[in-house]
Amino acid sequence: MELLKKRIEEEGKVINDQVLKVDSFLNHQVDPLFMMEIGEAFRERFRQDGITKIVTLESSGIAPSVTAGLAMGVKVLFARKRKSLTLKEGLVSSKVYSFTKQEWSEISLSSEYLTSDDRVLIIDDFLANGQAAQGLIDMVKQTGATVGGIGIVIEKGFQTGGDTLREQGIKVESLARIQSLQDGRVTFFEEEEVHV
Amino acid sequence: MELLKKRIEEEGKVINDQVLKVDSFLNHQVDPLFMMEIGEAFRERFRQDGITKIVTLESSGIAPSVTAGLAMGVKVLFARKRKSLTLKEGLVSSKVYSFTKQEWSEISLSSEYLTSDDRVLIIDDFLANGQAAQGLIDMVKQTGATVGGIGIVIEKGFQTGGDTLREQGIKVESLARIQSLQDGRVTFFEEEEVHV
Repeated sequence: MELLKKRIEEEGKVINDQVLKVDSFLNHQVDPLFMMEIGEAFRERFRQDGITKIVTLESSGIAPSVTAGLAMGVKVLFARKRKSLTLKEGLVSSKVYSFTKQEWSEISLSSEYLTSDDRVLIIDDFLANGQAAQGLIDMVKQTGATVGGIGIVIEKGFQTGGDTLREQGIKVESLARIQSLQDGRVTFFEEEEVHV
Repeated sequence: MELLKKRIEEEGKVINDQVLKVDSFLNHQVDPLFMMEIGEAFRERFRQDGITKIVTLESSGIAPSVTAGLAMGVKVLFARKRKSLTLKEGLVSSKVYSFTKQEWSEISLSSEYLTSDDRVLIIDDFLANGQAAQGLIDMVKQTGATVGGIGIVIEKGFQTGGDTLREQGIKVESLARIQSLQDGRVTFFEEEEVHV
């Protein structure tokens, strides 16, 4: 998605060769009109996949999931990172390690909102080692629903998460795939150019 | 907003006389098309207020803020409940007590995305004692921006937060104002009927 790559190039801050900060449009500030274009890009990529529901993880996954849900006309379920007092019964959960925060957390989802008829599109802001995505897949499967695909805004293609998921036969579509963050520069994979 | 009250009546679960669970359309599952109507309702209520930016608190505030931002054509900034490793410099912060979770948390916002020219609409899913709203107001003021109003999806009108904010001269607009959750029933304030 050319517009996304342009914004990453113009606004992204390469903190080190592993960390890209995109707080100005994805992880802290959100531009809803741009986010709507991201939602529409996901609709195009998963148009043939019979998606009936979107599942994401709070917080940064919510904005692109809501706009994808608007574009696709399906509901969005956001997994919580900790149990709240008002969300207890009928939960499925999974343990996820965050390399950014350097800690384990339990993520959970109410099984009430997914059935075995659902084909779920998992959406997240970043894909790096794939921990969060694997946790979301694990929970979707626990409810009996099917994973119809994974939509990622920015994939760190130099980490193993994307390849591991694709090797499992899952359709993974990333709107921008980063090849490297070395020398303070963002380099994208060239094959990404075929998508607009 | 009649449609919202209808959904609260049909889908809300009254846990006790203080707690209403609306996980099916607001706090866990989100219906993006309904959320878009909520965003448009906020646009109508704050049409005259010169809003230039929306500020909310992760996670449940994000969906209605993104749709309000889409409707109003302004960007959305979501305050974080904890500091991440990639978000450190130029922060303003405030301490907020959650009665639901029974704990203090620090919320923070990057001052980079607000200027003294901004008139901010604060949006949140619930207003009860007003702790989160006061924390958000506190942070917006620290950046030098002005609070142009507060938009709430569901106000627990039997708690003191809304009155305290209105007494400070702040325009508070709640799309549904609950008078009582007693006897397992949701009762709305009657004056709310004048808004549609």
